[in-house]
Amino acid sequence: MSMIVNRRDLDFTMYEVLGLNKLLNHQRYAEFDRESVDAILDLSQSVAEDKYLSCAATIDAEEPEYIDGKARTHPATKEALAAYNDAGLMVTGYDAEHGGMQLPWMVHQAVNGMFTCANVGVASYSFLTQGAANMLIACGSQELQDKYLPNMVEGKWCGTMCLSEPQAGSSLADIRTKAEPKGDGSYALSGTKMWISGGDQDLTENIIHMVLAKLPGSPAGVKGISLFLVPKNRVNDDGTIGDSNNIALAGLNHKMGHRGTTNCLLNFGESGETLGYLVGGENEGLANMFHMMNEARISVGMGAVMSAKAGYLYSLDYARNRPQGRPLVNRDPESPMIMISEHADVKRMLMTQKAFVEGAHTLMYYCAELIDTQKTSDDEEDNQRIALLLELLTPICKSWPSEYCLEANKLAIQVLGGYGYTREYPVERFYRDNRLNHIHEGTWAIHGLDILGRKVRIAGGAAVDILQAEIQATIDASADCAELSQEALDLSASLKLVRETIVAVGQSSDPALALANATIFLDAMGHVVIAWMWLKQAIAASKGLASGNDADRAFYQGKMAATRFFFRYELPKIKANLALVADLDSTCYDLTAEQFIGN
Amino acid sequence: MSMIVNRRDLDFTMYEVLGLNKLLNHQRYAEFDRESVDAILDLSQSVAEDKYLSCAATIDAEEPEYIDGKARTHPATKEALAAYNDAGLMVTGYDAEHGGMQLPWMVHQAVNGMFTCANVGVASYSFLTQGAANMLIACGSQELQDKYLPNMVEGKWCGTMCLSEPQAGSSLADIRTKAEPKGDGSYALSGTKMWISGGDQDLTENIIHMVLAKLPGSPAGVKGISLFLVPKNRVNDDGTIGDSNNIALAGLNHKMGHRGTTNCLLNFGESGETLGYLVGGENEGLANMFHMMNEARISVGMGAVMSAKAGYLYSLDYARNRPQGRPLVNRDPESPMIMISEHADVKRMLMTQKAFVEGAHTLMYYCAELIDTQKTSDDEEDNQRIALLLELLTPICKSWPSEYCLEANKLAIQVLGGYGYTREYPVERFYRDNRLNHIHEGTWAIHGLDILGRKVRIAGGAAVDILQAEIQATIDASADCAELSQEALDLSASLKLVRETIVAVGQSSDPALALANATIFLDAMGHVVIAWMWLKQAIAASKGLASGNDADRAFYQGKMAATRFFFRYELPKIKANLALVADLDSTCYDLTAEQFIGN
Repeated sequence: MSMIVNRRDLDFTMYEVLGLNKLLNHQRYAEFDRESVDAILDLSQSVAEDKYLSCAATIDAEEPEYIDGKARTHPATKEALAAYNDAGLMVTGYDAEHGGMQLPWMVHQAVNGMFTCANVGVASYSFLTQGAANMLIACGSQELQDKYLPNMVEGKWCGTMCLSEPQAGSSLADIRTKAEPKGDGSYALSGTKMWISGGDQDLTENIIHMVLAKLPGSPAGVKGISLFLVPKNRVNDDGTIGDSNNIALAGLNHKMGHRGTTNCLLNFGESGETLGYLVGGENEGLANMFHMMNEARISVGMGAVMSAKAGYLYSLDYARNRPQGRPLVNRDPESPMIMISEHADVKRMLMTQKAFVEGAHTLMYYCAELIDTQKTSDDEEDNQRIALLLELLTPICKSWPSEYCLEANKLAIQVLGGYGYTREYPVERFYRDNRLNHIHEGTWAIHGLDILGRKVRIAGGAAVDILQAEIQATIDASADCAELSQEALDLSASLKLVRETIVAVGQSSDPALALANATIFLDAMGHVVIAWMWLKQAIAASKGLASGNDADRAFYQGKMAATRFFFRYELPKIKANLALVADLDSTCYDLTAEQFIGN
Repeated sequence: MSMIVNRRDLDFTMYEVLGLNKLLNHQRYAEFDRESVDAILDLSQSVAEDKYLSCAATIDAEEPEYIDGKARTHPATKEALAAYNDAGLMVTGYDAEHGGMQLPWMVHQAVNGMFTCANVGVASYSFLTQGAANMLIACGSQELQDKYLPNMVEGKWCGTMCLSEPQAGSSLADIRTKAEPKGDGSYALSGTKMWISGGDQDLTENIIHMVLAKLPGSPAGVKGISLFLVPKNRVNDDGTIGDSNNIALAGLNHKMGHRGTTNCLLNFGESGETLGYLVGGENEGLANMFHMMNEARISVGMGAVMSAKAGYLYSLDYARNRPQGRPLVNRDPESPMIMISEHADVKRMLMTQKAFVEGAHTLMYYCAELIDTQKTSDDEEDNQRIALLLELLTPICKSWPSEYCLEANKLAIQVLGGYGYTREYPVERFYRDNRLNHIHEGTWAIHGLDILGRKVRIAGGAAVDILQAEIQATIDASADCAELSQEALDLSASLKLVRETIVAVGQSSDPALALANATIFLDAMGHVVIAWMWLKQAIAASKGLASGNDADRAFYQGKMAATRFFFRYELPKIKANLALVADLDSTCYDLTAEQFIGN
């Protein structure tokens, strides 16, 4: 079995639960059919297994070094990226007009997912580049696009996002990097940027930074932030590489995981002039950055799912091949040992992983389908509905996998026992990698405030109405499956509880107290959405079982069991949590810093 | 503030919540009073901060190496251990007759706790030695004690536990190491032992291994296991070191955390004869090993608490000094930033850590007090009650902190954000260290089976009756505090739920299904016990508040708040979990290995 993908499950998600077939019939994706999609996935799996998976442990153990002001990566990094680029996989997500393959986003995500699963440290370089390039496409002038985009699309140059500064992490309002207009359309940038993934490397001849900075006299706070394209090396008018743009690598951060990707402290304009170019309008930097950030946030969720999928597949394979102990009802030491996958608690740990990983996985593809639907529909009203739904789902897409797929990684270690705790096996690496995801692209708390303070209220609560309608459609569709009637009722009741909580919170006269338990709300609402994803899967599995395909019987039964598991073992947890939110519990909110330890 | 101990909280636990004062009046501890205990704790704190904390990051980064068949540790390890030994702290836990200080176990645990908190990698060497020495005291012949004990007590020689083998981790019934009697009272050992912490090192001139092995013709399974003392180097009759005992270091395991402690694969009797000496009776090895394992299991829990305490103290200090963002009700970017400890969700994360860490911390000291009470009481019946209660609490002591104190470490990283994810800050190390604790000394699942399959049934359920009586005594004592009436009711109802669950499980006709959700039962029962510990603390805090000591007001208020937090945010979670256990839910139990991925 593959350690990076369960193709049967991927097909199930894309073709049975969701409507990739229908999408492939659309003119936009006319070049593809199921056969060609399969071929691309085959190619991706092969390159990811051969070139990414094979060096993942090495790249983690021998992390990038800071040498003479430059970042040096492990040589296998460059080789792996070259194989990915050479296979033409760098361009799966771009439109044809930009030199891309114009695959459905769902399939593009499946391709990227395999590489993330195989080796997140290498994969990050290209995915950050794709994000930066997409922002340039969305907000950059034609001139900037002409000059910088082709090399980014082709993977010749990498891209980064430069938001944070040492004193301004979550609080972007407080960034200090300055951009002084030079009068010729360019700007001189000065300041320090922190946590820049891929901020320096020896992989590509240039790096295109997307940098948030402030113009002279701009408004205070986030309203005065502009976005700049800042190349590591200047680019001549003929497209050749010119002088250094004087961005100094001040140091590398040494992370617990994601060690294959350089993470940098960069100084702009310290040792000479650093030139940048405005992307989008003045003071519109944050809004423009969000073009990239929403995509980045779903990618973070996808990354969390993929790290957990790696752990799930590995620990499942291990459990099915590791003999240890005997059944509780027959402890005779003379009888042979059984595989640990036969022990009830190992089953529980594998099932928990399955429920978390495949539940979140389905959500990622559901969102990809929404994006594809937007791209293939001319119905403005429908697209507006989808946009609102995506806004509401984004904090869940980002945060729920960051929490529960990390939990899955914790359990993968437990399945392997002592072996799982050593670096001789990969599961501890996945756990270290995944711990990042709650932190970058907006912390857990920020997404809690986003969903409860903003997203459930936008357009008069329209996003929640849309979600409710979508969930109701799934509940209605489940009516054909009598064995899902309890789950349908539970989901309905859970959604009602979410809505009642939103109303209760809205009635608070203290807006800060109202949001004090926002993280807990985000967590609970995520559970409802994932339960919905499981009901979707169960409906498809139920149809599959009815179709009587013997070869797939165990697969579909597993889906039905995982649905029952999520509804019985997980969904009930939301009740106590939502009660805390609705009651505006102030236990934590009322605390003073002194009360924690007494001084 | 200290990064390894909150002395105010330690005093609160020992003197206000529990009865160290009373213990110090007992003849057994006549040499000590509060003043001398304080002096020992001062000394311990000073040595732990100066010599252990200072090199903890270094020892983690520069882990032991395997060189020419030997393990080489970082030089700071030896220096730190020497400082601990020179301060006389190695002997705090032994009785005077064995050359020990004969401190109350509670205080001995407080001393060890500081060292664990400061640097678990170094501390493990001495604590494993103390465990091995205590087993030798409990089960070894006078001759063996005379020959080996003094050097172990003084810390000149280290000790280890050798249970697992590559093919036999959790399943000790399947160990293959053999011990052939030589006819002169010694045995020739042969076999391979895995996961041996401190199994080889360059710190002490000898290492005393406590090894499980099988005699020729012994019964199959755990009934045929005997325990042997096996020195690394043979010891001459005059006590000097003789020849090598031919224990080969086959390799080191490279763990995610606990990197300061060597973890070894050892081959016995491969390159020459390895001599061992029977400890206790033939085939009584497992029972004898349990003398060490129960102590070891509580120590594992204590280790988990201490790793989490380290993260809690560090992240609290950070949160109180890191400015970032503004209050939700005043986002004016021109206003100064606030400390992150003022943000509601940071308070929630700090409070969650406090509730988990200090709740589990109290349980560890409660158990220590039980042990001290046993040591100071001649009342056989009472001691029997205490023994049963300790049996019941041991799996909780081991597993609950392994789960929730790890969760606390996860939150400590989140409080520090991106910084917390880097090795430039210590919180990611604590998280890596703590992940081990669910694995060694019996996995999570094994403790679940132990508590639900055995401990709640021993002596006709007497242990649960004793626990109930103890909890009821606390509930009765809370009657004076009107503000705790809801918590008292909740605790009472929760305990009732636990008992009902035990009854429901007992009625199952399928013993394997009855235990299928045992881990979840262990988790829920742990929550009830920790809630009890918080009620104990709240009663003491309430008294403290009533006594009107202004200096301690914030401290006591924090304890009251943490009690409310645990009862409101955590305890309600048990209801859904215990329902699954009582209903004998078979969702996971029924699964086949094929159903996870379909083949």
